[in-house]
Amino acid sequence: MSKIRTHIAEIPQKIGEIITVKGHVQTLRLQSCIAFIVLREITGTVQCVVEKGTPAFETVKQITTESVISVTGKAVKTKSTESGFEIQVSEIKIISLAESTPIPVTTKGSTEVTSEKSQDWRFLSLRSPRSATIMRAFSAMMSGYQEYLSKQGFIGIQTPKIMATPSESRAELFKIEYFGQTAYLAQSPQLFKQMAIASGLERVFEIAPAFRADKSFTTRHATEFTSFDGEMAYIESFEEVMTELEKTIGYMLTSIKKACGKEIEKYFGISEFQLKKPIPRITMARAKEILREMGCASEQPDITTAEEKALGDYVKEHFGSDFVYITEWPWETRPFYHKKGTGEHGEPISVSADLLYKGVEIVTCAQREESYAKLCEQLKEKGLHQEGLQWYLDCFRYGMPPHGGWGMGGARVIKQLLELPTIREAVFLFRGPSRLMP
Amino acid sequence: MSKIRTHIAEIPQKIGEIITVKGHVQTLRLQSCIAFIVLREITGTVQCVVEKGTPAFETVKQITTESVISVTGKAVKTKSTESGFEIQVSEIKIISLAESTPIPVTTKGSTEVTSEKSQDWRFLSLRSPRSATIMRAFSAMMSGYQEYLSKQGFIGIQTPKIMATPSESRAELFKIEYFGQTAYLAQSPQLFKQMAIASGLERVFEIAPAFRADKSFTTRHATEFTSFDGEMAYIESFEEVMTELEKTIGYMLTSIKKACGKEIEKYFGISEFQLKKPIPRITMARAKEILREMGCASEQPDITTAEEKALGDYVKEHFGSDFVYITEWPWETRPFYHKKGTGEHGEPISVSADLLYKGVEIVTCAQREESYAKLCEQLKEKGLHQEGLQWYLDCFRYGMPPHGGWGMGGARVIKQLLELPTIREAVFLFRGPSRLMP
Repeated sequence: MSKIRTHIAEIPQKIGEIITVKGHVQTLRLQSCIAFIVLREITGTVQCVVEKGTPAFETVKQITTESVISVTGKAVKTKSTESGFEIQVSEIKIISLAESTPIPVTTKGSTEVTSEKSQDWRFLSLRSPRSATIMRAFSAMMSGYQEYLSKQGFIGIQTPKIMATPSESRAELFKIEYFGQTAYLAQSPQLFKQMAIASGLERVFEIAPAFRADKSFTTRHATEFTSFDGEMAYIESFEEVMTELEKTIGYMLTSIKKACGKEIEKYFGISEFQLKKPIPRITMARAKEILREMGCASEQPDITTAEEKALGDYVKEHFGSDFVYITEWPWETRPFYHKKGTGEHGEPISVSADLLYKGVEIVTCAQREESYAKLCEQLKEKGLHQEGLQWYLDCFRYGMPPHGGWGMGGARVIKQLLELPTIREAVFLFRGPSRLMP
Repeated sequence: MSKIRTHIAEIPQKIGEIITVKGHVQTLRLQSCIAFIVLREITGTVQCVVEKGTPAFETVKQITTESVISVTGKAVKTKSTESGFEIQVSEIKIISLAESTPIPVTTKGSTEVTSEKSQDWRFLSLRSPRSATIMRAFSAMMSGYQEYLSKQGFIGIQTPKIMATPSESRAELFKIEYFGQTAYLAQSPQLFKQMAIASGLERVFEIAPAFRADKSFTTRHATEFTSFDGEMAYIESFEEVMTELEKTIGYMLTSIKKACGKEIEKYFGISEFQLKKPIPRITMARAKEILREMGCASEQPDITTAEEKALGDYVKEHFGSDFVYITEWPWETRPFYHKKGTGEHGEPISVSADLLYKGVEIVTCAQREESYAKLCEQLKEKGLHQEGLQWYLDCFRYGMPPHGGWGMGGARVIKQLLELPTIREAVFLFRGPSRLMP
């Protein structure tokens, strides 16, 4: 019979008791009279002390680093470890012996995790408490997102990823052979979310993969990423969308804090990350003014990566905020389905915003055009054809309430929150133009 | 300025007040002196009475069925509607006028929803309260699944859907052009879930699409479906997997009941569906005996659709259960990564089970083989090659705890729960060999 497992995080409550812990051997030091094992599992690490003369000491000699073992012994207080406790071992069982060949990459966590070799051996680099914290933060973000929106009456949907038509543009599309036809991978759930609004579902959200055949080699692009989408009907103004999204993000960050705030502080040195005040809103026109004043405005009608960074610094300095909404985008920079509005100087704008987090765009949100006639016009204006999109346009013919929504890149939120060098580290497995394995 | 919207479900608390409701016009009856509108939104329907001589009466004349309107008026009690209340209208505003062409398919809900035309016009057939209930049940199932497993320490992950190698078998694979290479759509997250276990994440779950290029035209197959997966490490026996899954399903069903139990009773006549007693377990050998006694055993080593149905009837009659675990499957019927065990008569079995719900398989669960050597052997035995799978096999070389898990078809759960004719009705949008639109 196996003994009941104690998780390492529970040990402080079990001092003086005989317990059994299970996990991977992080380090092993075998001396002539004593052996030290650092055992690692999802809740932490613990030092296990094995004395010569015990049967366990003989077992230790067979153990290799990263093997999975079961350790039984007395939990005692000690001054010799950071945690303040250790296990005086009476019995060790080898559950799964690791090969004695050298471990290909470190399991102790470092920014090397972004190297190609670390990606090849991702299951090993993920073993570090640093990586486990990232995975737990991502999980808490998904839970928080879903929990908050469900409470607000949003319905969780799962829309198809295989489509007969592109969801965003003809560029960056992955093609699939679909029973002799050509189909495409969804670049976003945009058109389906709007269909859900036409279906009378009123408020919907989705957490699901999206795909972009984008050859970018940056620290924030991936060919497959988890998109956090939301769409809400019967809005009176676009402001409602920004407000709901802001509350969602606030809730998400609190969920992450609750789930692994301590570990985030320990491994990333970041403690204050909850949303404590309203997110500032800056129009694009004003943003460009600010950028000119800062001497780093580009000639682009939209915002470049460098400009995003500068705006992030600006709002941090002037508003003490990690976040900023950039609103009123030039119409030419946005897709056909956005609502067209008029800017301060009469110029056509898209009723939309980008949300920047520490100087990186994490969300695009917008009010949508709900009139069939105007939508057809805007489609034409953008040089697109009605043909393949008629199924989508039909959704606007039999009553469509005003609506708006957002698409958020989950990995970018985690990257920015934990200040990771790249989104590769923020996700379980990265997919890029030259990264299809494992 | 727009008035604050009251949801139809809130009207009973607002009797005697002037309120504003918004929604689609379900029906419109215009008589010489009075007009009746049934307005529909996500929380219900309400009758709106408009008297001649009011400005609203003139507006009614322009309204078409399915238009989106805003209705302001007094909420009053009445004996003339099923709900016991109606609105005496003072003002109507047209938000989005529907075309006056006939609505292509019914928005009132019927099993016709499974017709090809209803699928073509899915956004209309989804408007019925019946369909909205299904969507809400699906959403509550996702929430419940995630909530329960998160509480049990499972980490939510999102694994890649684009793969360099098949995840299950070479059959039923969708091919993608991936920057000049051939890639595949994931048939399941199986290999990645196990990689997560090798990564030390211990307990993981995922709700995500899975893809099968399966030409089946049945009521329970789709080429793209939402898979509810779970994987747990450090198990002492396979029983733990079945128990955890059972608790998960119990929690899910309770979540569905809480979210829309009343509507399920109203539209589907189903009221008692929570899990109230342990799910019976029947070995495959015993199941075949039962089937022979019932006179409907097939010659197949696994279980046919007809046999599933018969077993469903049997456990309903003998155990009063909608669910049954069929355990100890012949080794030949299961994939290489299952753990091999020994049956009652010494025959090789897979340490796994199928979970049937009202006579349809909704889950396959299994303990996995964690030994690298045995896994390589089993791979060979099943006639597969190590080559493309080496990245997966490597996960077993540096310490792999014993583990097991499940894959559940979400649409099948909803289909069986609500006794729908087909999974087409259980999902937002269906994908099949000849159904790629909308």
